[in-house]
Amino acid sequence: MDTPGHQARPVDYGRVFSQAIDRLHAEGRYRVFIDILRNKGQFPNARCFAGHNGPKPITVWCSNDYLAMGQHPKVIAAMEEALHDVGAGSGGTRNIGGNTHYHVDLEAELADLHGKEAALLFTSGYVSNEATLSTLAKVLPGCVVFSDELNHASMIAGIRNSGCEKRVFRHNDLVHLEELLAAEPADAPKLIAFESVYSMEGDVAPIAAICDLADKYNALTYLDEVHAVGMYGPRGGGISEREGVAHRLTVIEGTLGKAFGVMGGYIAADRTVVDVIRSYAPGFIFTTSLSPVLVAGVLASVRHLKSSASEREGQQAAAATLKGMLTDAGLPVLPGDTHIVPVMVGDPVKAKRISDILLAEYGVYVQPINYPTVPRGTERLRFTPGPAHDERMMRELTDALTEIWDRLELKLAA
Amino acid sequence: MDTPGHQARPVDYGRVFSQAIDRLHAEGRYRVFIDILRNKGQFPNARCFAGHNGPKPITVWCSNDYLAMGQHPKVIAAMEEALHDVGAGSGGTRNIGGNTHYHVDLEAELADLHGKEAALLFTSGYVSNEATLSTLAKVLPGCVVFSDELNHASMIAGIRNSGCEKRVFRHNDLVHLEELLAAEPADAPKLIAFESVYSMEGDVAPIAAICDLADKYNALTYLDEVHAVGMYGPRGGGISEREGVAHRLTVIEGTLGKAFGVMGGYIAADRTVVDVIRSYAPGFIFTTSLSPVLVAGVLASVRHLKSSASEREGQQAAAATLKGMLTDAGLPVLPGDTHIVPVMVGDPVKAKRISDILLAEYGVYVQPINYPTVPRGTERLRFTPGPAHDERMMRELTDALTEIWDRLELKLAA
Repeated sequence: MDTPGHQARPVDYGRVFSQAIDRLHAEGRYRVFIDILRNKGQFPNARCFAGHNGPKPITVWCSNDYLAMGQHPKVIAAMEEALHDVGAGSGGTRNIGGNTHYHVDLEAELADLHGKEAALLFTSGYVSNEATLSTLAKVLPGCVVFSDELNHASMIAGIRNSGCEKRVFRHNDLVHLEELLAAEPADAPKLIAFESVYSMEGDVAPIAAICDLADKYNALTYLDEVHAVGMYGPRGGGISEREGVAHRLTVIEGTLGKAFGVMGGYIAADRTVVDVIRSYAPGFIFTTSLSPVLVAGVLASVRHLKSSASEREGQQAAAATLKGMLTDAGLPVLPGDTHIVPVMVGDPVKAKRISDILLAEYGVYVQPINYPTVPRGTERLRFTPGPAHDERMMRELTDALTEIWDRLELKLAA
Repeated sequence: MDTPGHQARPVDYGRVFSQAIDRLHAEGRYRVFIDILRNKGQFPNARCFAGHNGPKPITVWCSNDYLAMGQHPKVIAAMEEALHDVGAGSGGTRNIGGNTHYHVDLEAELADLHGKEAALLFTSGYVSNEATLSTLAKVLPGCVVFSDELNHASMIAGIRNSGCEKRVFRHNDLVHLEELLAAEPADAPKLIAFESVYSMEGDVAPIAAICDLADKYNALTYLDEVHAVGMYGPRGGGISEREGVAHRLTVIEGTLGKAFGVMGGYIAADRTVVDVIRSYAPGFIFTTSLSPVLVAGVLASVRHLKSSASEREGQQAAAATLKGMLTDAGLPVLPGDTHIVPVMVGDPVKAKRISDILLAEYGVYVQPINYPTVPRGTERLRFTPGPAHDERMMRELTDALTEIWDRLELKLAA
């Protein structure tokens, strides 16, 4: 544009920003956050504020507080005690004043949960993935990262921010992964990054077989277990514990904000790997550490779920029951044997419309899942039944969906 | 290495990782976290665990809980109420179940604090900088980012992750900044990213003059106020409030984990800019939202500091007193008129040694500040006196430093 005689036009920033928002409206995927407050002790019951005169009761069907541990009396009591003992925030980074005894204890507890030498806390699961993957790959010059195509945005961010070469393998496709591994030089450092439970599909990775390939091609492995820790394995150590393969993985990553019910993220690995991340990852070093109140709550939650299986059993039973009801009603449930129940819609506007009707007419809260959370054309509703969702709630949900599917003339299961 | 007849050697990952740690030991900057628990209501008194038989009492001199709000009765009461009302965690991302009424209220409160139309919460100040800067610059094709050379690691990460061109200007140097602005095409989108209070130097940016340059060259401005919010301005709106320039800045970024005493980060800006970040930033979208317990505590803290100036006055008085005492004793205090009191050492091993002696012999906890937090050769101790540090504590600290400076034959002020 900057040709002779042509006056350069100043950038109209407001216009650029407005256009960015207009694009989302045009695609029907502009996000409106539903304003809710949960009722402690009565989950999944909650109150909804938006667009109503005063709070209105709703049933939450899309929480990642999968086992309702965020309302467990032991968790609440531990947080209350920490609040009174040490106060609200940590007051600093882990290195500068923000390393409390709670942090040290929780890292030991998490290392033990996964049978690893050490663990490291982050402010979120997102940060743990971004910080660890970007640092791990950067410390290994010439590293090639092999990434499942459905990996979470935080893993993709970490891999991209490492600046390393990336090879994307088709979802859970061992043949494709091996092809890509074999195509790289034998002496190139390699890292396979994948998840155990894929949260929008509800399917599970072939962890042992991926570890076999890692052994064969001398690759490190990085497993995201955020949708599995607390929920699978005899002590809640995740799918890797259930299948007895935790010791074969270089890094296991988890969250403290889903089944453990609080907030934060972590990795577990051998002492040296953890020390490298602790010492080099900007996303770990340069941030105020988790509030000791949260850490105290997580400690109680992890310890409880190590010895109590009733929450896990209740969740599995609820998921099986709901899947059965929805399938019997002919609704397009994505098959899978985890706790996640996706119902396919395939259109962002319709997914939003169903969600709006459920909230306004049925007091059912489930968020539409649209791009960029899932690929375009695979928009869906995603239900996460837990031990506290009873059969009456499931029946009401199934009936509501059946009525809406009929009203909107949506496709039933093939 | 992969010459004919040469067998490619498999990567020895353990060796690479060990070498990375060895380098830190060799440079004397391997970090050991001090294991502490603060005594609520008695800050800066705390207990130290590491290397002792049972907790030992210490005085904390390096907390970023600058105004001791992490222990304020209003903050504790608000968190306790939220804990009992809604439970530990939010249970989801802001879009999927994790948008509570507390979040909505706090964003309105923070927008008001900075006189902006809107605000947006993040899980940390680090994430708010990384997510906002990377997204803002990405939404503006061809954007050039102008970054102060002493900007925080999280801002650097955001700028780098945006993939945009970056021009680094010398610290607070308006002449250099203008040179760099003038060198770019008039029609290129431009963003100036800087801080108000630089936390390791304790000096302040010429905000109004930078806004003048932004006007002249049609650039957006991004101001990090993490070491100023709560502490400067009649309502704690930061240096930009104190100097009456908040309305001139495109984005003001702040933290909830320092003067506000809890955890989290945020931006405040006009409605469209906030909506763009809310809609496009992966670090905002794909992460469990802040625990409502934390948000409730911050709400109480922000509201209190909007109307109470006594904490700010106490902090300024303490900083002035301590600077006076250290200067009178001939210790090399970096000049500046903020609440931060840096004492220069210039060597990582000596900085660590002073810190170790202070903790072991004097019960004084101040962390050595080494690379990469500050440039090599400028290693220092950084004291953050607050309203709760009294004159007796300051006298003990000054005497201890004088004795150690003498013992280790360190340089006094010129």
